[in-house]
Amino acid sequence: MKLIENWFSERYSDNLQLSFRVSDQLLSVKTDFQRIDVFETYDFGKLLSIDGTVQLTEKDEFVYHDMITRMPFYYADKIPEKALIIGGGDGGAAGELLKLGLKSIINVEIDGQVVEVCRKHFPKLTASFNDPKVKLIVDDGIKYARNTKEKFDIIIVDSTDPVGPAEDLFNEEFYSNVSRILNDGGVVVTQSGSPFYQPRGIELANKGMRKSFPHVASYVAFIPTYPSGFWSFTMAKKSQIKLRTENVEKGEYFNLEIAKSSFALPEFAKKLTL
Amino acid sequence: MKLIENWFSERYSDNLQLSFRVSDQLLSVKTDFQRIDVFETYDFGKLLSIDGTVQLTEKDEFVYHDMITRMPFYYADKIPEKALIIGGGDGGAAGELLKLGLKSIINVEIDGQVVEVCRKHFPKLTASFNDPKVKLIVDDGIKYARNTKEKFDIIIVDSTDPVGPAEDLFNEEFYSNVSRILNDGGVVVTQSGSPFYQPRGIELANKGMRKSFPHVASYVAFIPTYPSGFWSFTMAKKSQIKLRTENVEKGEYFNLEIAKSSFALPEFAKKLTL
Repeated sequence: MKLIENWFSERYSDNLQLSFRVSDQLLSVKTDFQRIDVFETYDFGKLLSIDGTVQLTEKDEFVYHDMITRMPFYYADKIPEKALIIGGGDGGAAGELLKLGLKSIINVEIDGQVVEVCRKHFPKLTASFNDPKVKLIVDDGIKYARNTKEKFDIIIVDSTDPVGPAEDLFNEEFYSNVSRILNDGGVVVTQSGSPFYQPRGIELANKGMRKSFPHVASYVAFIPTYPSGFWSFTMAKKSQIKLRTENVEKGEYFNLEIAKSSFALPEFAKKLTL
Repeated sequence: MKLIENWFSERYSDNLQLSFRVSDQLLSVKTDFQRIDVFETYDFGKLLSIDGTVQLTEKDEFVYHDMITRMPFYYADKIPEKALIIGGGDGGAAGELLKLGLKSIINVEIDGQVVEVCRKHFPKLTASFNDPKVKLIVDDGIKYARNTKEKFDIIIVDSTDPVGPAEDLFNEEFYSNVSRILNDGGVVVTQSGSPFYQPRGIELANKGMRKSFPHVASYVAFIPTYPSGFWSFTMAKKSQIKLRTENVEKGEYFNLEIAKSSFALPEFAKKLTL
């Protein structure tokens, strides 16, 4: 047997890339929205890439999914019961919300092929879609937020970066609709990119939310397979951003200290949120 | 003119690497202790590598140097006056301590060629060595700590990772000598590696310090060009670990919130310190 070395590389710029040695390319498909690839890597298990950027790996998806679900859960004024996820076609965010005891989750993913690919290659994550408490809708989340009559305690924007299909998920019009469908003590959160390589994400999220919400704050987490390893999320509320400290359950990444301290931004990142 | 693409890659494992496109290799030298390389990169300015691992780049060295100097400075019981740096042959830590107003700094670097290389290629960092308040000694820091009669308010172990020449900088014997030469309200800090890829660093540092110090705590920072982007430092004191909150001056990374919150460890990293 001949050993062939294959690498998948994510280019962070023309001059910098992170490369994973892969034993197999399991899938490569061009959808109406984007290119989806799945690789079997040596160090990180299966890896899902969209348009050449790592979306998740089996080994470190826990950080992203902990931080995009548990933070809004414990920062909602009351124990949340009903959630909306925009994006999140891998099922990971819905799965974490189920663990936290949510009673009703609507998950609106624009690209049905993301769901199909993940059902095949990440069945542990998409298992959440089989739960009767989760309703999966394949549609444009922006349109959904504009038209729905429902209201939510948590809204999670689990999208790709603010280029291409996800760009309008960072603007003011979208967040005015989100504000309309978010209950008063509820929390909306979006992933907002690497403050180091993609300052635009955290800037746009803060700007987009601030017009519709009096309380906006960015928090950060370390995600080894995302550019720079340093990732931001941005949260908004109509009421004060205050932790519900009773019965905070640990995740693999999340814990009570992380819940409190992840809003502390390095000085260079803090400037991007002002 | 022919465009030739040259890349410097740091292998994090057999299966993962971060690669910087470089316009020039400025130096490659094998010393008695290690191999030193200097590259001119496109995105990060000049890059210093030792034994194939990134030690610093012009663009992001500020994070490491902020966090290895300002944290012990503000966690010392009184404003520190006298410091010992072990390692730190690039002069960056000494430079930050000068900015903070230290009156006397002894910098013990084992490899004189690190100093010479940095004087040539990183003159802004090594400028600190020209200050009369800084005494540069080319010698083994472990021996120095064992034999010196001096005492210090801050001791910074700014070394390579715990393999090869730096291994003994993580053990109990070294820290018993550090304890002897550290003033009562003083702080010792060491870099202790990536909790994600190199759990041994933070484990060893905690174990090594705990025998000689009643108060030990690890803190973390995001350093984009280090493995996983997530880096730990471990601090020890004879007295309680308590921030001096008056007049905390910002760095480019460091600020008051970071000073307080960088001890919050993700659950998987916290387990390594127990």
